[in-house]
Order: sequence, then structure tokens, then C-alpha cells
Amino acid sequence: MHELPQYSDVNNAYQRIKSYIHHTPIMSSQAINNIVGASIHFKCENLQKIGAFKIRGATNAILSQLEQAKQYGVATHSSGNHGAALALAAKQHGVQAQVVMPANANEVKRQAVAAYGAEIVTCDSNQQARESVLAELVKASGALIIHPYDDPLIIAGQGTCAIEFIQDNVSLDTLLTPVGGGGLLSGSAIVAKQLAKNCRVIGCEPIQADDAYQSFKARRRVTEIVPNTIADGLRAIIGQLNFTVISQYVDDILTVDEDEIIAAMRLLWSRLKLVVEPSSAVPLAAVIKYKAQFKGQHIGIILSGGNVDLDHLPWL
Amino acid sequence: MHELPQYSDVNNAYQRIKSYIHHTPIMSSQAINNIVGASIHFKCENLQKIGAFKIRGATNAILSQLEQAKQYGVATHSSGNHGAALALAAKQHGVQAQVVMPANANEVKRQAVAAYGAEIVTCDSNQQARESVLAELVKASGALIIHPYDDPLIIAGQGTCAIEFIQDNVSLDTLLTPVGGGGLLSGSAIVAKQLAKNCRVIGCEPIQADDAYQSFKARRRVTEIVPNTIADGLRAIIGQLNFTVISQYVDDILTVDEDEIIAAMRLLWSRLKLVVEPSSAVPLAAVIKYKAQFKGQHIGIILSGGNVDLDHLPWL
Repeated sequence: MHELPQYSDVNNAYQRIKSYIHHTPIMSSQAINNIVGASIHFKCENLQKIGAFKIRGATNAILSQLEQAKQYGVATHSSGNHGAALALAAKQHGVQAQVVMPANANEVKRQAVAAYGAEIVTCDSNQQARESVLAELVKASGALIIHPYDDPLIIAGQGTCAIEFIQDNVSLDTLLTPVGGGGLLSGSAIVAKQLAKNCRVIGCEPIQADDAYQSFKARRRVTEIVPNTIADGLRAIIGQLNFTVISQYVDDILTVDEDEIIAAMRLLWSRLKLVVEPSSAVPLAAVIKYKAQFKGQHIGIILSGGNVDLDHLPWL
Repeated sequence: MHELPQYSDVNNAYQRIKSYIHHTPIMSSQAINNIVGASIHFKCENLQKIGAFKIRGATNAILSQLEQAKQYGVATHSSGNHGAALALAAKQHGVQAQVVMPANANEVKRQAVAAYGAEIVTCDSNQQARESVLAELVKASGALIIHPYDDPLIIAGQGTCAIEFIQDNVSLDTLLTPVGGGGLLSGSAIVAKQLAKNCRVIGCEPIQADDAYQSFKARRRVTEIVPNTIADGLRAIIGQLNFTVISQYVDDILTVDEDEIIAAMRLLWSRLKLVVEPSSAVPLAAVIKYKAQFKGQHIGIILSGGNVDLDHLPWL
């Protein structure tokens, strides 16, 4: 059993990776602020390398175990952004990478993984298939498994985004992130509770993939859910370490339906002029749905990624 | 006849307007750089207020004639972004605004003009209709006509974008902007020739609206063209003052076809993760088409705006 990551782990990760990642900008829109009646600050990880925050965790995981990674390679399962992140981080540091991807993975994300030079292994679109195919692979290669979220080095890496956010910004009343496997949310919560003690931290999840919500409410990890949401980055099941951190540090989890996600995504495109993927729109959808509780606040939202199939937009 | 605007006019405009506009960021994409074999810096005026650079000129025109504008109001004709810009600038400074819009104007742009509180008057979709309807309007109201581009205050305002660009950036070998009526191109050229004497300035235009190109080559203003391009911001005919400045300071005009514009627009969306309108993609389309002449350069491109009808994307 891994130890729970601490703030010092996140800060060490930040020192380790910061020269390899973009310090992403924070943007806002008066029109969106007017809709909510609050001041919303968007941290633009869609503008991050590989188009998503996942490069932070992948880079931290590889740099923290570089000698072993170089010798045996790295491997993972991923619906897309973590796979691309691991592929790029591996390439940048002279490491071989293998990525197990479900058959229903977003085509743009699949192409990105291939473009960064990783070997792709396709599996069935469920959690068991992902894990068993990965286990077989590493039995053969001895590769280091870099789990997409249930790993203290990944959690620490993803948390570095919240360090930048809090250091660059006015003091936030609430910080919201999407939650899929829980890497970004758990890392962000560790940071917020250290650097911004009065800031509430809220995870936001599609109703059609609400394993984190159900786990949070039941106070035990609920894993029997089959995610079926347009937010392809959030189809993973909450991790064990992630759930432990979230139980301890996260204030609430809010859920939204598919139409709410699509409407918020469209609003971000039309008002912020940013291409974001559906997962990124989940927190804004939650803020709009539950706006009464956010009135007048300074709100931080992490826009987690921008890897969209432009031929298949959900509102068309 | 107006005097030609000078660099000092642009700099004065910048001092006048800078507290009312965004200092927009500059972005880049390794993937796009690799396609061209050059280092391209994109100035993101799609992130400007009203989603386009036009707020710069409109604000300068209103602030430079504020007393008269407050007394009689302002009026213009516009296919969209200048109308929205004038509407917002007018509203911010307590001025009434009327906007003549062609019947085929982009619906999103029409809604924006209405949302900022201007009165919209619809006319036929040609230059004569725009101008005669506008003339009638101001005969009745006495409103100050703020031409979308053929006006030294507008040219000076639009040129402020190039001041920011050159001051923020490494030295550019070439600066490219789209050219419709010529406000942005003429203002940018005045600035570049003062602040970056070795920087080439190139206008980029759709083949299907190539009045500026034809004028530039013929060394006289060619106005008998009926623009028919997806780049709705570039359907205007080059202005008189604009053409005079362009003849003097611009190094070349390059043209691209509709498919090249759409491909470049899609590339900006997928790689920069930015929502830009077709007009904004015209310079990148030209750089890709003529990449041999840009090899190894530092290139500056002004992304002019991001007001797109998300229900009608040109590649779908």
C-alpha cells in the first residue's frame, strides 16, 4: 500500500517538472460571470502540452523513476490523455512506452498517442479488460506500470496545477475540478488545503459516471458502475488512493447530466473562445446548475483538456 | 480628404484606449511550427473584448470625438465585428449607436450588436446598399459616422495591436494580418515600419474577395469586386485611406482559396485550442501555402477574431 501523498510531495513534483511543462494562463469571461453572478477564473490546461493536465503527472512519474523506466520502459492503460502524456514524457526522456487503450477511445486521442511514438494495444471498453491486458503486457516486458491516477506520483504531479493556480490568482472561495479516476481532484485538494485553507474544494462528475459521487456519499469506494458519458476523460472508476485523499480533503461532489455538460462546453467555446473537451465543461455545468451556492464568490475552475474530435461536436 | 495616420497617431491611440481593452496574449504551437518549418507567434485578438481587434479602433474613434458622439450618437455599417465593437464602445462611454448590417451577416455577430444595445438597421448585402442606408440614417439623426476602416482614427486604433505584438515579442521577420477593408493591415504596417524596420508586412486575403490584392498589383484601388468568401470579416472592399497606406508600407499581399482557409482554421482549433473565425485563419493558410518563403523565420500572425456560428462549422 502506498503512502498518501502530502503537500511536500506535490511541491517536490512541481520543482521536478516545471521546466518541462507550460505554466498555463488563467482566463475569464464577463458574460459567463454574469450568468452565474460570480467571478470565475479558468485555469487553461487545454493549452498545456498534449492538450491536457495529464502531462504533469506523467512527467513526474517518469522523472521520479527514470533509471528503472529507461531500463524496462513504461506502460499504462488510458482512454486517451494519460496515454498521450505518458507517450510524450517517455519520448522526451528516452523511455519506451506501451499504452493499452479501449476500443471506444476518442480517435483524436488515439492518434496523439501514436504520434508521440508509443505502442498502442487495443482492449475491450471496460475496466477489467484494461487492467488484465496491461498486466499481461508488463509480465512480458517488465515495464513499469504508470497508472493513470491511482499512484502517489501521479497525484502529486496533477496537484502541481493547483499550485500555479493559487499562486497566480486572487484568493479563491471555491476550487472545482472534474473527477474521473480522481488524480486531478485529489492532487488539487492536497494543495488547496495547504495553500488556501478557506477554499472549498469540489469535484464535479457526470451523473452517467457518478462512481466518485456515490463513493463520497456512501463513504466507501463504489466501483460497480459502468460509465456512459460524453465526457470521455471521466469514464474511469475512482482510484483507491484517490478516494482516500478525496474523503479526507474534498468538501463536496456535484453531478450534472449530459445536456448540462454540452451546454457548458458550448458556452466555453463561444465566450472564452477556447476549444475544451467535454470533461473540462463539467465543473462549469455544476456551477451554473447550483449557482445559488456560488453567488458572489471567486471561483476557480480547472479546464482539464482540449482534445476534441472536431468532426463530431456534441451539439451538432 | 483625411491626412494619413502616422505612428504618433497610433501611439496616441494606444495611450487613449489601453485601459479599456485587453492586452491579448501571444501563443504558439510546436505542431504548427513543424508544418511550416518556422517559428510562428499568434497574437490572440480572438480573446479581445467583443472577440475581435475591432474594439481598438471603435474605442479610439469614440474617445477622440467624445463630446460630439455623446450629443448626436454614432452610426456605422458593418458585417459584424465593427458593429459589435462600436456598440460596446458606445455603451461604455454613454453614447447611442446605430449599426447598418447586411442581410447575410453572421447571426452570432448580429446578436452581439443587439446585446450591446445598439439599434440594428438591415440592408441588402452589397457595398452600395450599406453606404446609402447609412447616409439616410445620419441625415435624420446627425450621428457621427464611424466608418469600419476608411478613417484615420480607426486605422490608428487597429494599429495598437501591432504595438503590443512587437513590444511583447522577439523580433519578427514577417508580420501577417488578414485584409478586408484594410484597417488592421494599414495600422499594423504603420507601426511595423516604425518599430521593426526590418520586418516585412504582408496582407492575406481570400481569392474570392481579392480586391486588396488586385488593387496592390494594379497600383490603383480596384473596387468592382463582389466578395464571396467564408471569411465574413473580409467581405469589405479596401478603403481609400487604407489603400494609400498599404501601397506605401506593405511588402506584399498573398491570397488563398476557401479550402485552404478552412484547413488552416481547423488546424488552429485543433492545435492552438483556440476558437477563431475564418478571417483569422487566412494568414496561416498563406504561410502554409507559401511556406518556402517563410522557412526558418520568426513570423507574427494576428488572429483577428473568434466570433463563429458554432452551429455551422465550415468543415462539417
